[in-house]
Amino acid sequence: MEEFKNTFTDVNEMGEFGLIDHLMEGFECKKESTVKGVGDDAAVIKAGDEYMVVSTDLLVEGIHFDLMYSPLKHLGYKAVVVNLSDIYAMNGRAEQITVSIALSSKFSVEALDELYAGIREACRIYNVDLVGGDTTSSPKGLTISVTAIGRVSPNDITYRSGAKKGDILCITGDLGAAYLGLQILEREKQLYMSNPGIQPDLENQKYLLERQLKPEAQKHSVEFFKKNGLKPTAMIDISDGLASDLMHICKASGVGAYVEEGKIPIKDEAQLMAIKFKLDPVTTALNGGEDYELLFTVDEKDLEKIRFMPGVYIIGEITDEEEGLKLHTTGGNIHPLKAQGWKHFEKNEDSQN
Amino acid sequence: MEEFKNTFTDVNEMGEFGLIDHLMEGFECKKESTVKGVGDDAAVIKAGDEYMVVSTDLLVEGIHFDLMYSPLKHLGYKAVVVNLSDIYAMNGRAEQITVSIALSSKFSVEALDELYAGIREACRIYNVDLVGGDTTSSPKGLTISVTAIGRVSPNDITYRSGAKKGDILCITGDLGAAYLGLQILEREKQLYMSNPGIQPDLENQKYLLERQLKPEAQKHSVEFFKKNGLKPTAMIDISDGLASDLMHICKASGVGAYVEEGKIPIKDEAQLMAIKFKLDPVTTALNGGEDYELLFTVDEKDLEKIRFMPGVYIIGEITDEEEGLKLHTTGGNIHPLKAQGWKHFEKNEDSQN
Repeated sequence: MEEFKNTFTDVNEMGEFGLIDHLMEGFECKKESTVKGVGDDAAVIKAGDEYMVVSTDLLVEGIHFDLMYSPLKHLGYKAVVVNLSDIYAMNGRAEQITVSIALSSKFSVEALDELYAGIREACRIYNVDLVGGDTTSSPKGLTISVTAIGRVSPNDITYRSGAKKGDILCITGDLGAAYLGLQILEREKQLYMSNPGIQPDLENQKYLLERQLKPEAQKHSVEFFKKNGLKPTAMIDISDGLASDLMHICKASGVGAYVEEGKIPIKDEAQLMAIKFKLDPVTTALNGGEDYELLFTVDEKDLEKIRFMPGVYIIGEITDEEEGLKLHTTGGNIHPLKAQGWKHFEKNEDSQN
Repeated sequence: MEEFKNTFTDVNEMGEFGLIDHLMEGFECKKESTVKGVGDDAAVIKAGDEYMVVSTDLLVEGIHFDLMYSPLKHLGYKAVVVNLSDIYAMNGRAEQITVSIALSSKFSVEALDELYAGIREACRIYNVDLVGGDTTSSPKGLTISVTAIGRVSPNDITYRSGAKKGDILCITGDLGAAYLGLQILEREKQLYMSNPGIQPDLENQKYLLERQLKPEAQKHSVEFFKKNGLKPTAMIDISDGLASDLMHICKASGVGAYVEEGKIPIKDEAQLMAIKFKLDPVTTALNGGEDYELLFTVDEKDLEKIRFMPGVYIIGEITDEEEGLKLHTTGGNIHPLKAQGWKHFEKNEDSQN
């Protein structure tokens, strides 16, 4: 039966980025209106004198969220926010979203109302319009697809690719907390699964839990840039983790970078919780992900402007490509910075197929 | 335990359109750049002197497609085409798409290659750029989310809401074939499931099967309109079925309409196959759906221009709202035209949750 012998290459072998590169082979952008296709936080399309930036994400129950501990209202809020984050990462103003959902019959209208209450709240807070979507059923679970649309002038648009040697590396807020919030929720879930009589102990960790369940995006940072005539040379949002996302900037810009360990912003509660989980706080901050802070680079001459930016941290510098990605430890050592990044495919369990 | 008593309202009670109306309560469009939000084939956003039209669809394995008989390459092609169809329904030119997929580990890289070969083919045929997307894993099955982006001048844009009394009702091609193609595939699947030794009998029905598995969208119709200075007064694409989609035009335009039974285009092979399945060919054409033809109305004065449009059929006329939707039978009777429409939620089987 030679004709039925098929090759089966596991998608895990390639990893997310390898897989995307592979799938994009043979696609090329030909339309005059396409400014930038796959390869940044959002696609860029001409829209009169401005650019339109478009980003899309798919959130799948059992992979990206667990309804055992994600309240539907927070989930709706987060689904919107993580997409707006991609618009801000292009230095854009988010203006519209579409939301599509596929849901199984376990979800009631009341459950959907909760989800949409969160979506509505995010639209209100971030001042974006819900303009479309699709509602359908699913054999199992909940899937949410959000597309965010923003605008930015061609002068202001910020790609991953503009960083150059000597630029200052900055981050808009603290790292690692969202990951630690997830660890607490997962631990309590496991305990509950083995003994449903047990009361969850969330340890009053409001900050860590909120960073995981109801993150915010950096609208105000983009507004600060505009108001202060400051344009980052490169920018990305932290979804996979500082190490991985910095790697994207360095790869796209053809540069290296170093991060000063002592400058990485980690909140006290994250430090303590990391230690409690026997994790290294710095590793957690470098690889935790889902922080939705903006990682950006600015020209040295803009150092003074950056000093006035509320909540921002200067954490390193852009170097030559040959230098690679380095971590300057507080102890005075230099280590290579490794991106662990995206692991979703490894969680994949399709035991029935 | 009063505090845990939740109301459970089944989404099926509301139907798709009722559910969407319900979920959209409390949302209002506030951005100056939003021209039209939810409620037409695509959202409309200002883009300089032009409008950008954006449409999105979610296709779920087990609901919208069955991999037992949908080749992945055709599925990729269809996923793109059904979204482009929404852009054409706004009288727009499709220019970009984003494609997100969630897939379980049963899918190999080779399977994905097939899917993307179909997506690439659709991009080539319809001359659109793939500019973004998301690739993630899923606990079970395949989900595809496509967003299509097009452009149209504010003078040319066609909404569902512009039909007026006396307008001529037209359709760009024959109806019912896609539904009958699906019936053949489903019949053979059932036979195969009860006896895997049996050979599928597709009866050489290439046309019916292609209309189901690899539909085309009406790019050339929109080009014809432009070239001939013809602007439909209202337009929608046939996804749910002629009766249901005509109802959308009538509702949005505040008009009634009649369809002449004898003018409804049904191919001979569809006629014969309908009879074989003991279905009424006209009912199949009215309610089958997934034809992706354009249903549109034109002013009486444009009758001559319509006569030169290749492949187009004049099937009825717009009347006063009080007249409702009517079918003028070949026997000279007048029947109310009922929209059966969307039934996806009823297929929903979430037995495990």
